[in-house]
Amino acid sequence: MRNMASSGASARGIAAIVGVGPKLGRSIARKFAHEGYTVAILARDLERLSTFADEIAREEKAQVFAIRIDCSDSKSVKEAFEGVLSLGFVEVLVYNAYQPAMSWNPISFTDIRIDSFEKSLAVSSVGAFHCAQQVLPGMVERGKGTILFTGCSASLNGIAGFSELCCGKFALRALSQCLAREFQPLGVHVAHVVIDGVVGPPRPGPSTSQRPALVGELHSSGGTGDYAISLMDPDALAQTYWYLHIQERAAWTQEIDLRPSNNPRTF
Amino acid sequence: MRNMASSGASARGIAAIVGVGPKLGRSIARKFAHEGYTVAILARDLERLSTFADEIAREEKAQVFAIRIDCSDSKSVKEAFEGVLSLGFVEVLVYNAYQPAMSWNPISFTDIRIDSFEKSLAVSSVGAFHCAQQVLPGMVERGKGTILFTGCSASLNGIAGFSELCCGKFALRALSQCLAREFQPLGVHVAHVVIDGVVGPPRPGPSTSQRPALVGELHSSGGTGDYAISLMDPDALAQTYWYLHIQERAAWTQEIDLRPSNNPRTF
Amino acid sequence: MRNMASSGASARGIAAIVGVGPKLGRSIARKFAHEGYTVAILARDLERLSTFADEIAREEKAQVFAIRIDCSDSKSVKEAFEGVLSLGFVEVLVYNAYQPAMSWNPISFTDIRIDSFEKSLAVSSVGAFHCAQQVLPGMVERGKGTILFTGCSASLNGIAGFSELCCGKFALRALSQCLAREFQPLGVHVAHVVIDGVVGPPRPGPSTSQRPALVGELHSSGGTGDYAISLMDPDALAQTYWYLHIQERAAWTQEIDLRPSNNPRTF
Amino acid sequence: MRNMASSGASARGIAAIVGVGPKLGRSIARKFAHEGYTVAILARDLERLSTFADEIAREEKAQVFAIRIDCSDSKSVKEAFEGVLSLGFVEVLVYNAYQPAMSWNPISFTDIRIDSFEKSLAVSSVGAFHCAQQVLPGMVERGKGTILFTGCSASLNGIAGFSELCCGKFALRALSQCLAREFQPLGVHVAHVVIDGVVGPPRPGPSTSQRPALVGELHSSGGTGDYAISLMDPDALAQTYWYLHIQERAAWTQEIDLRPSNNPRTF
Repeated sequence: MRNMASSGASARGIAAIVGVGPKLGRSIARKFAHEGYTVAILARDLERLSTFADEIAREEKAQVFAIRIDCSDSKSVKEAFEGVLSLGFVEVLVYNAYQPAMSWNPISFTDIRIDSFEKSLAVSSVGAFHCAQQVLPGMVERGKGTILFTGCSASLNGIAGFSELCCGKFALRALSQCLAREFQPLGVHVAHVVIDGVVGPPRPGPSTSQRPALVGELHSSGGTGDYAISLMDPDALAQTYWYLHIQERAAWTQEIDLRPSNNPRTF
Repeated sequence: MRNMASSGASARGIAAIVGVGPKLGRSIARKFAHEGYTVAILARDLERLSTFADEIAREEKAQVFAIRIDCSDSKSVKEAFEGVLSLGFVEVLVYNAYQPAMSWNPISFTDIRIDSFEKSLAVSSVGAFHCAQQVLPGMVERGKGTILFTGCSASLNGIAGFSELCCGKFALRALSQCLAREFQPLGVHVAHVVIDGVVGPPRPGPSTSQRPALVGELHSSGGTGDYAISLMDPDALAQTYWYLHIQERAAWTQEIDLRPSNNPRTF
Repeated sequence: MRNMASSGASARGIAAIVGVGPKLGRSIARKFAHEGYTVAILARDLERLSTFADEIAREEKAQVFAIRIDCSDSKSVKEAFEGVLSLGFVEVLVYNAYQPAMSWNPISFTDIRIDSFEKSLAVSSVGAFHCAQQVLPGMVERGKGTILFTGCSASLNGIAGFSELCCGKFALRALSQCLAREFQPLGVHVAHVVIDGVVGPPRPGPSTSQRPALVGELHSSGGTGDYAISLMDPDALAQTYWYLHIQERAAWTQEIDLRPSNNPRTF
Repeated sequence: MRNMASSGASARGIAAIVGVGPKLGRSIARKFAHEGYTVAILARDLERLSTFADEIAREEKAQVFAIRIDCSDSKSVKEAFEGVLSLGFVEVLVYNAYQPAMSWNPISFTDIRIDSFEKSLAVSSVGAFHCAQQVLPGMVERGKGTILFTGCSASLNGIAGFSELCCGKFALRALSQCLAREFQPLGVHVAHVVIDGVVGPPRPGPSTSQRPALVGELHSSGGTGDYAISLMDPDALAQTYWYLHIQERAAWTQEIDLRPSNNPRTF
């Protein structure tokens, strides 16, 4: 664990983002940092993670901690969360991990090795199970908290050649529904975000979170032509993760889909 | 049509809210008015509607127009929207209408009169079809706009004794999906909001839209005990309608569910 | 009404098949006739219908009645079922009607005429509602009966350019679920059949129902190459309608999908 | 492996039923034996399994083999299927296994041990994955075969207190859909059976499979009052497994639900 910045004690809790690469995870982490949260970012590659943490801490003047985790290894999950929990109350958990070695090309079912299938389930659902178990007792004790799971179109429909991905993502969706039903009455918001499209690179220039309020940028990104909207802007996705977190408990969302405007055929 | 307030030309387009009673429709109208939109509110009871319009116009210092509509009568829909369209570009359509006479108690299928069944379909889906047809050409021409349809748990599952409600609401969901697929590539955001619970009365005191930004009220409504969270606060619901409107087009939602935290068994 | 054949009183009830053209409806009618039911076939084109009735009556040595119906006209539905009910106890209702004039090409939403949209809903769902109301009292009285509704992929997902079809088919699925929940405890089996593909012409040669038992033709149709399996054989579909009817009430199906083996991408 | 009966070479292939207890698995095995298949039944308790095999072999005059399997142990799966495959072409695989130790009472999420969660996934989905891999090459080579997976209401919706069951069953449903899309064009029928209710004990007296054809018992079980239809008769369930197997490939089902007539509220 490396403390990447330390600009004073945070009045808010900790937001733990598990599965942080250069796209979605980083954008979510930056958004929560921007909104005043101390953020813990977790992934397997600590070096890359530390670069992200430095960058976010500097740009958002926030506390950002980089912590190594291997979600397929329950000992690693346990140790990583000892670190996270030592930072304070974990108010937000975003679970965004996937198996890095998994192919994004279809693979004939009979060619899938059983250990690869098991590992995919381990990362997609056992890892999520284990991370949720680490943070829920604290959330229940305080009667508040938010857990957000990242799904995709493979969470909803099987796809030929992608049984590893689909089985893990279906299981993750099940976990999300079970936890919502058990813990929402106790004050913990649990939601499943179905990202139906390919997440693109972050927008060049200042991030969304540094720009003025949402209202000001209404419908602006599509019109200028400087951003390929067939890829999904990770900063735009991160806005919805944040919105789910701030929903009032009188009207909580359990599942939401997100896709680019110009690719509606995928749903 | 009565012009309820006229505090100067609006820089924004028109938000037309169809199906405005004392709860959800009124809260949505107030939210869009608060955010600077000229609002047209439409329902059958013009007298009650005018009271709402006066109240919102005064509280939000906004232009609010009350226009009578009978969604089961296509002539009435056409005339009402001639009024709405004369106000300017209709940038937002919220369709929230239901058949007032429909029973909220289960009714034996063999006792349902066919004209009642037809009327329920007319309000739930033909009315929505017709309203959408009025505003879509303008939205397509400008390459922007938002259409939000209000669904409920009866949109997703049949219920014994509620075939009138369910058939109409299933059809409305179909309409929402068809329009999303056709018009999102043209810049029009179409979403379906599944409200899974009973909408309660507005919160006493200043409305959400008059209070500080969303962040400030994070998780506050549930803790104080002064609001029965088993009913759904219409102001909290209206926040999500607004959020759907301001989503960036790189990451649009087609369907979202909303329910109170303490009633997760309903989904 | 024309009595097409009269080879003696049937020990079984009546099977009423609504929406009978040269493909699916005719195959279903023949299957029920083959199994010993007196069959009433209903559609708009009485002349064509009478030809089918003659043919089935002759081939299956069964009583087959051709009765004109316009499912978009509630007076016509009522009169047609007075005829059907006069034949005896209606034990089976298959609702298979669609709007003949509806285009099978996508049509731009803003070009759909409202009366065409209304008519599509009238045939898909109001007609089904009305037919079900005619037969349910008798089924409830005897504590038995089967109602089968024909859906398609448009029953499950909206499709750009097909809002007429989708809205009607979603509503029909809702009706099916509502009726199942209300009437299955009273002994009436209600199921929704999702046909996900294009129904082809009947197989040449003797019909399935004249050939030996199902077991004997196991997996035979695909291998010989004499039948284009990308179209769906209506006789094969009719087998499943029959199977749903004979399911024991200890294990009833509410929804089933059917598609050709070589077109799994459509689901 | 014990050869339980050997009344001559079978003209048909082998039906392998994995997860055979006294209810559903036994009824399915008996049905396929009755229809002329050589049956391999697999479960952990070889002693009990052998009793079932003896009984079915005697009653149905069929070849029935009892083979021990531990679906959570991939070495055991591999060895068991070496035995099954040595019997001949495996034409049918029914996967019906569940974790015997899993509680059927809700268990607080934070009390679930991670090894228990992993084991549940191992049995529900890794075991199914592994069994399917053993039989698919032979099915693809011959261009025919049937794989049936047993699901339940927990396959479709998360349930508070049942994340072990739900995650495994969601993953199994994903597997079923992926395999259907990949292998149906190659001639292998893959279907998922959602059993929405509690399976009861077998019917007393002669089994369904010893009675006359299905047609003869039309709607008879419900009327006599001698069978508690709120439990699901495993013989009635087994009929649908058989029907899925004999569906013609021009009209295959991917998913079907089954529930007792008098418990429609559960879906």
